[in-house]
Amino acid sequence: MSILEVSHISKSFGSKHVLSDINLTFEENKIYGLLGRNGAGKSTLLSVITDRNFANNGEVKIDSEDVRDNDSKLGMMYLMSEVNLYSNGSKLTQIIKDSESLYGGFNHELADRLIKEFGLDINQKFGKLSTGYNSIFKLILALCLPVQFVLLDEPVLGLDANHRELFYSELIQSYSDNPRTFIISTHLIEEVANIISDVIVLDQGRVILNQPVEDVLAKNHSVVGPEKDVKQYTKGLNVIGHDMIGNIRANYVYGDLDDRVLPDTVQLSNFDLQKLFIFLTNQYEGGTDNEDK
Amino acid sequence: MSILEVSHISKSFGSKHVLSDINLTFEENKIYGLLGRNGAGKSTLLSVITDRNFANNGEVKIDSEDVRDNDSKLGMMYLMSEVNLYSNGSKLTQIIKDSESLYGGFNHELADRLIKEFGLDINQKFGKLSTGYNSIFKLILALCLPVQFVLLDEPVLGLDANHRELFYSELIQSYSDNPRTFIISTHLIEEVANIISDVIVLDQGRVILNQPVEDVLAKNHSVVGPEKDVKQYTKGLNVIGHDMIGNIRANYVYGDLDDRVLPDTVQLSNFDLQKLFIFLTNQYEGGTDNEDK
Repeated sequence: MSILEVSHISKSFGSKHVLSDINLTFEENKIYGLLGRNGAGKSTLLSVITDRNFANNGEVKIDSEDVRDNDSKLGMMYLMSEVNLYSNGSKLTQIIKDSESLYGGFNHELADRLIKEFGLDINQKFGKLSTGYNSIFKLILALCLPVQFVLLDEPVLGLDANHRELFYSELIQSYSDNPRTFIISTHLIEEVANIISDVIVLDQGRVILNQPVEDVLAKNHSVVGPEKDVKQYTKGLNVIGHDMIGNIRANYVYGDLDDRVLPDTVQLSNFDLQKLFIFLTNQYEGGTDNEDK
Repeated sequence: MSILEVSHISKSFGSKHVLSDINLTFEENKIYGLLGRNGAGKSTLLSVITDRNFANNGEVKIDSEDVRDNDSKLGMMYLMSEVNLYSNGSKLTQIIKDSESLYGGFNHELADRLIKEFGLDINQKFGKLSTGYNSIFKLILALCLPVQFVLLDEPVLGLDANHRELFYSELIQSYSDNPRTFIISTHLIEEVANIISDVIVLDQGRVILNQPVEDVLAKNHSVVGPEKDVKQYTKGLNVIGHDMIGNIRANYVYGDLDDRVLPDTVQLSNFDLQKLFIFLTNQYEGGTDNEDK
């Protein structure tokens, strides 16, 4: 029912352009992965969207209404981030009560289950939580508040493997019970690759990829074989990276292969989202068909 | 040439037993993965080994000599951890100089390359570094100081996927150029699974696994098929976890399968180190052959 639109958002800190003309549409009931290197602008974008930070240009709208200073629209979003909004002396139970009255609701049944599963001491004070439990507490808030847009910035920071797996499975369960829109920013790309429906890649403050995950993965091809044959086969294709092991070369192609004939010596397979991300956000200069190396 | 031995180490904070009778031997030129859930005692163990923290019982020896207050033995180890040893106002170049004179050497050639590859601003002050670059700077120290034992506690905290991949490849290169002993504590288990030679799992302050990785992986079996057949086949085996999808059951076995006959309906394969870790450190109660669920 609700759509979140980001139009022409730009943001500078001093002379540094952190976000440059960002245009994005977040549709209802999708799970977006927002990927980018450290410093790419992800956290800034999420804080601009939720009006914690202001942009120099552009606007953020929910259902065509600007969210800036707009309590009813801002109340449709929750941003879980590394920045702590709560005072260290507050008890977790009190933060839940305050958030419930601010957002007009709270799923206590789900929260009770999550608190038990994660082993969170709910009588603790916020400032006493470890990095991992700080994340866990804010994740519980994010999943239990009645918002249409859940924005998660590095949600699993400090979580061990068991708690990460538990979180991913609870996220899917919560989404399935109550479909809404998630925007997840994370460095652990392979762990969310099966969860997200769409992938957005920010690089140096610009959107360089914005597509459904399955479309992206369908364009990932690894071409492996003798160096000469691989180079010949991938001539003119969009080679974004390569590996060499002895005389065997792997060229990584992002895009369509057209109908060229595959030599018997060369094997095609796919590669994963994290590898694609690394190639797209590294400067790659060895992939042109003119190279001599 | 050098062996690090941990004997009967116990440590309590108040009434809480953080480490209980830990016995470990770290041999030369191996790469150990030290795994454990949040709170399992990993960081405490590493700080006890390096004499930053004292144990209530037990001792740590290098080549049969107690390391406690023993500068020549302590100088053989470097612990890179979340705890910052350096003052925020110090320039990175000064910290390198001080560390070089403390440890009696520094691989400037390698450091220069790493600084360039990671894009670290070496003229920065320590306190101005982001979480990611704080880790990166300490990793460069760890790889370039002339120590026999390199202890890394959550080395990739805050690093993006590109920098993590770069670090793993530089670690392998550095190890290959100059073999020494590494102890790596991390929550990103699958990312180090191909790097480590031995795996140690701590759980609630005790060592519950200590083996070469290849031996561990050879004992990981997933048994998949119709529920009845799978339960029948795995009867009496060490089932440490299971999944159900519709009528299909996967039982996860850790240990030998003996020479029992595999039914045609059941498929055997392997599962990965992270999954094993999760099973071993979760309380699992659904795996006995007596279960009714």
